Amino acid sequence: MSGGDPKAARRGLMLILSSPSGAGKTTLADRLLEKDRDLVLSVSATTRKPRPGETHGEDYYFVSEEEFSRMRGAGEFLEWANVFGNAYGTPRAMVEETLRQGKDVLFDIDWQGAQQLDEVAGEDVVKVFILPPSRQELERRLKRRASDPEDVVAARMAKADAEMSHWAEYEYVIVNSDLDESERLLRTILIAERLKRRRQIGLARIVKDMMGGE
Amino acid sequence: MSGGDPKAARRGLMLILSSPSGAGKTTLADRLLEKDRDLVLSVSATTRKPRPGETHGEDYYFVSEEEFSRMRGAGEFLEWANVFGNAYGTPRAMVEETLRQGKDVLFDIDWQGAQQLDEVAGEDVVKVFILPPSRQELERRLKRRASDPEDVVAARMAKADAEMSHWAEYEYVIVNSDLDESERLLRTILIAERLKRRRQIGLARIVKDMMGGE
Repeated sequence: MSGGDPKAARRGLMLILSSPSGAGKTTLADRLLEKDRDLVLSVSATTRKPRPGETHGEDYYFVSEEEFSRMRGAGEFLEWANVFGNAYGTPRAMVEETLRQGKDVLFDIDWQGAQQLDEVAGEDVVKVFILPPSRQELERRLKRRASDPEDVVAARMAKADAEMSHWAEYEYVIVNSDLDESERLLRTILIAERLKRRRQIGLARIVKDMMGGE
Repeated sequence: MSGGDPKAARRGLMLILSSPSGAGKTTLADRLLEKDRDLVLSVSATTRKPRPGETHGEDYYFVSEEEFSRMRGAGEFLEWANVFGNAYGTPRAMVEETLRQGKDVLFDIDWQGAQQLDEVAGEDVVKVFILPPSRQELERRLKRRASDPEDVVAARMAKADAEMSHWAEYEYVIVNSDLDESERLLRTILIAERLKRRRQIGLARIVKDMMGGE
């Protein structure tokens, strides 16, 4: 991961994936996490109630409003927001410890969270926006559950539009026409970003040793 | 090259490779150029005389001092420099035309040329520094021709040190321990950089078409 030299250490990065729902982001995130042992998912804390099938510590840390307030007051969140009456926050300690260990943290978050993380940790952040291949395809994916009433689908499309309107705030953009290809491109971005000089924190010493003069 | 969407155009980039001689840069450049039809080598103009085996228009454009002065005066160089009494310059027209066509230009230049290109074309520039795996290996490579006197080798090492002292001005660093691996990493950087939003110049229209509202 350090360009071939085993002596070089590196500082991890924060890979932020955003997209309208239906663009394939969660599938791509799962695939990346599955195959890359140096990539760890950031799990948010939230005050909202678990939905069926959600696991504490895996999908979210489900905490009380009191606990959330305490964490916020103690500066334990890198970023936090209120969405429809529920609070969401990114616990700081896990992220900082993972980066220090030279591993990367994956964030599956919306444009608001991405903006906040960029503000507090810009040097460590790599922002990737996933676009659907077309509006027709996005609609098809959002309608997949045939039982949904029309107005639910319309609300989802409106939410997708709101998210997509922020695409230009991202450093990288992938149009997800093909999951395998998009997965390959995401992995390419991750590997390239690991080669950035500022993340290869052991290099200064190595170059010093390599250069002449005592 | 545009993340899977055939409609998206892109603006090419300027891939700058620098390294001390003996680190494998030219071999890596040749391999990249051979396999990537979207990558074109920038050929410099120079007033120095051709060495045996060098071809006009391939290794350099060999021009007279008068012609070089005329080109410089006409603003035909992106950057130029005098090195040991000879002038070298990067012709502007070919670079700009290639970038407009959505292809990339490879520069095999030293830190001075890299600095100048960064100054005049920063947004288009991707700077990669290639390091040798160790000082011993660098010395071994610079001594390869057994007929070289000791002081020639020492002068080469001093020149290598001078070039290496600029490694921290580069965005990416690759330690070239293994040519195949380094080639793979260079290609990874190139593909990732092509996914940068600002290079995918057709995307704004595509996203506009994709979003709701007339």
